Amino acid sequence: MSNKPSIPQGTRDFPSEVIRKRNHILSTIKTVFELYGFQPLETPAMENLETLMGKYGEEGDKLIFKILNNGLNNEKNIDKAKAGFEKVLEGKNSTDITERALKYDLTIPFARYVAMNHTKLTFPFRRYQIQPVWRADRPQKGRYREFTQCDADVVGSYSLMNDVEFALIYDEVFNRLGLTGYELKINSRKILSALAKACNATDKLVAITTAIDKLDKVSIDKVKIELTEKGLTDEQIAIIEKYVTISGSNEEKINQLLNLIGNIAETGSGLEEIKQILQHTAGKNIVVDFTLARGLNYYTGIIYEAKAPATVQMGSIGGGGRYDDLTGLFGVPDIPGVGISFGVDRIYDVLEELNLFPANLQVSTRALFFNMGEKESALAFTVMQQLRKAGIACELYHKEETKIAKQFSYAEKKNIPFAVIIGSKEMEQHYCQVKNLSTGKQQEVTFDQLADFFNSN
Amino acid sequence: MSNKPSIPQGTRDFPSEVIRKRNHILSTIKTVFELYGFQPLETPAMENLETLMGKYGEEGDKLIFKILNNGLNNEKNIDKAKAGFEKVLEGKNSTDITERALKYDLTIPFARYVAMNHTKLTFPFRRYQIQPVWRADRPQKGRYREFTQCDADVVGSYSLMNDVEFALIYDEVFNRLGLTGYELKINSRKILSALAKACNATDKLVAITTAIDKLDKVSIDKVKIELTEKGLTDEQIAIIEKYVTISGSNEEKINQLLNLIGNIAETGSGLEEIKQILQHTAGKNIVVDFTLARGLNYYTGIIYEAKAPATVQMGSIGGGGRYDDLTGLFGVPDIPGVGISFGVDRIYDVLEELNLFPANLQVSTRALFFNMGEKESALAFTVMQQLRKAGIACELYHKEETKIAKQFSYAEKKNIPFAVIIGSKEMEQHYCQVKNLSTGKQQEVTFDQLADFFNSN
Repeated sequence: MSNKPSIPQGTRDFPSEVIRKRNHILSTIKTVFELYGFQPLETPAMENLETLMGKYGEEGDKLIFKILNNGLNNEKNIDKAKAGFEKVLEGKNSTDITERALKYDLTIPFARYVAMNHTKLTFPFRRYQIQPVWRADRPQKGRYREFTQCDADVVGSYSLMNDVEFALIYDEVFNRLGLTGYELKINSRKILSALAKACNATDKLVAITTAIDKLDKVSIDKVKIELTEKGLTDEQIAIIEKYVTISGSNEEKINQLLNLIGNIAETGSGLEEIKQILQHTAGKNIVVDFTLARGLNYYTGIIYEAKAPATVQMGSIGGGGRYDDLTGLFGVPDIPGVGISFGVDRIYDVLEELNLFPANLQVSTRALFFNMGEKESALAFTVMQQLRKAGIACELYHKEETKIAKQFSYAEKKNIPFAVIIGSKEMEQHYCQVKNLSTGKQQEVTFDQLADFFNSN
Repeated sequence: MSNKPSIPQGTRDFPSEVIRKRNHILSTIKTVFELYGFQPLETPAMENLETLMGKYGEEGDKLIFKILNNGLNNEKNIDKAKAGFEKVLEGKNSTDITERALKYDLTIPFARYVAMNHTKLTFPFRRYQIQPVWRADRPQKGRYREFTQCDADVVGSYSLMNDVEFALIYDEVFNRLGLTGYELKINSRKILSALAKACNATDKLVAITTAIDKLDKVSIDKVKIELTEKGLTDEQIAIIEKYVTISGSNEEKINQLLNLIGNIAETGSGLEEIKQILQHTAGKNIVVDFTLARGLNYYTGIIYEAKAPATVQMGSIGGGGRYDDLTGLFGVPDIPGVGISFGVDRIYDVLEELNLFPANLQVSTRALFFNMGEKESALAFTVMQQLRKAGIACELYHKEETKIAKQFSYAEKKNIPFAVIIGSKEMEQHYCQVKNLSTGKQQEVTFDQLADFFNSN
């Protein structure tokens, strides 16, 4: 029966210190989402296999955790299971082996939910969703097989005010978390289309986008080599090079873009979107970046990418954009949407590195009542119940302990800020000794005044 | 690409109305756990297969959702995978097919966590855990394949004060939820042992316990037949019958028990435990029930079972008890513990049936700003940002809509209590019309006073 216990690679236990820090991030995001009229949604951990397969590209499909059907050894299943397993061994999927899988992101389950319920929902539908997702990626620093996603989307509205609000939500969340040095990059997919058109290479839009997207990791020369390999001519590449070297303030960049490809209609409509966002976000850290592309092909308009303050080595801590037809995947077309996501695990690491978690986060239990003997602890328990009634979290040391250093040590290890001591003398005279464990200051407080003491300390 | 969307049998999407009701329950439980000094813990959805197998009996093992290993078609895996699949078809498990599984409850992952970390933890370790678990049960009304468990445990202490506190936690949670008519049944496993001893049938303790446990579903005659089949004599069954028909007030029951099997040592030590709980819970709905057995074999002392108010047809809404050696399963012996669990899904149904969810639970967004045209809505947006800064959740209708009935209807469908209207006249004179959508009352409020209005309405 006895095994050496362990947990699966790439997964984590979260003890209370970590949960409180994570909750600080999650509740900040949640509060801001709700201020902007978003409502929560939760979907199951499992989805039907066919809901997920084919939505994340070939590589994504391989990273989906599939759940083995139960009862494969039942007589009625066994033949199908054998045939299904042959398919699995060929690298294919079989619902005779795995009907269900763990969700890989929150976007596809959300699209599935909207498609299933679109006749009942009130549009525009504004939802946020904070849930774990699972990916069979090779675990490495900062990359886990179970991690939390944190999304908000509006579907059923073409209004650019939604896009504007998401930029403001990023600003508000990062400011509340103390990440005032964040940077939100914006671009429009329409401008990338305009570039392809200006190059007479609309058929090569994906190749151009993919190559440009790598610019924050590789040099311009490598990008040019990739573009040549993809069949672009030197003149086409010259336009792209001018495009990616656009620089300066947001206004300067826009002017350079207009000089370069202002004659293309999509440039105008893309810039309209960007200008509307800039107009409503004056003074915020919004940076126009025409090289921002974002991998996902479903984006059609504004795209965002949030970066941590430059002092921290960390990639994107959030991203999103506008899409036209996500629920079309599930047979319900013409529901446009826009959405963003926060990278909770990365934000956690950034706040840790910059020491931005509030110091008072780690206090939950306010007082440890010492156990000074049977009668004393019976009285302590009564006093403690009054405190709990007043909303003050406390606990009684579990047994009489004559070495009271042990009781102090327990309080310190558990980060409990106050010790309440009721010995025989205090018991007679109806008061207690309250010791502040960080300052060492000790004072006498009557039982009646104890709740007030904790409410004001 | 286009499928008709669906979700797996036995799983649920939670829209915002349901989430708010669930959060009402969960945050009530969480608050009370923390008042009693419990700290949160979260463990991954997945555990290694060997952590879970063999812990829940043969039937339980079959209900564990196992996760298919990825990359079974890789050349280096394929032979092992084939051999592993043969085992699966024989109804066995193979880590060559499934190394991981979804957690089946919170107790075993907690025991695994304590065993892994026991050298670092501060004992007594008080943790609570609120997370989903998964069981491949046949779905039916009130039984889901994904559901939330809500546990608190203290490990590393023999003190009966922990057991007392759990009874008080049940009382506090149910009272806060309005379930004042709840009933908490208590018993001690020691008393069941005493009964077996009194019958000279200590070897038949499990048979006796199992039979008695069925008494809330089947008649005493059926239980007697079962006991006969299990090999108990008529004299033994006569003692058991006297035992299970003990009735009256808690005090009367205790006296009858003493008369019946007071000569057995375990009767005394079991009653000591029960008396200590009764002493600290005077006036609460604690009912001594010597027929309470609880299925799980790891219990060794006090056991609890919480029942919904008698007006509702519903089984147990919570339970728990004391155990001696849970982490022994993972090679770390001698860590005693006591814990309880709340049945969140059942509590939800009970509160729904008794109409006990607070009416104000469903309000999140306080105000819908109407969209009365381009200039008006630009101003509305500015006013709205001030409200959001003041912590008041609001949203702007997404497009100009001349049929203002449509905007009213959107607010009503989304349960937004106030409409804020800024037309051209209001724009000029710096005020807005605020309409309470449930009373129909409309009043004029200046922009400056709007935050105050919402903070006091």
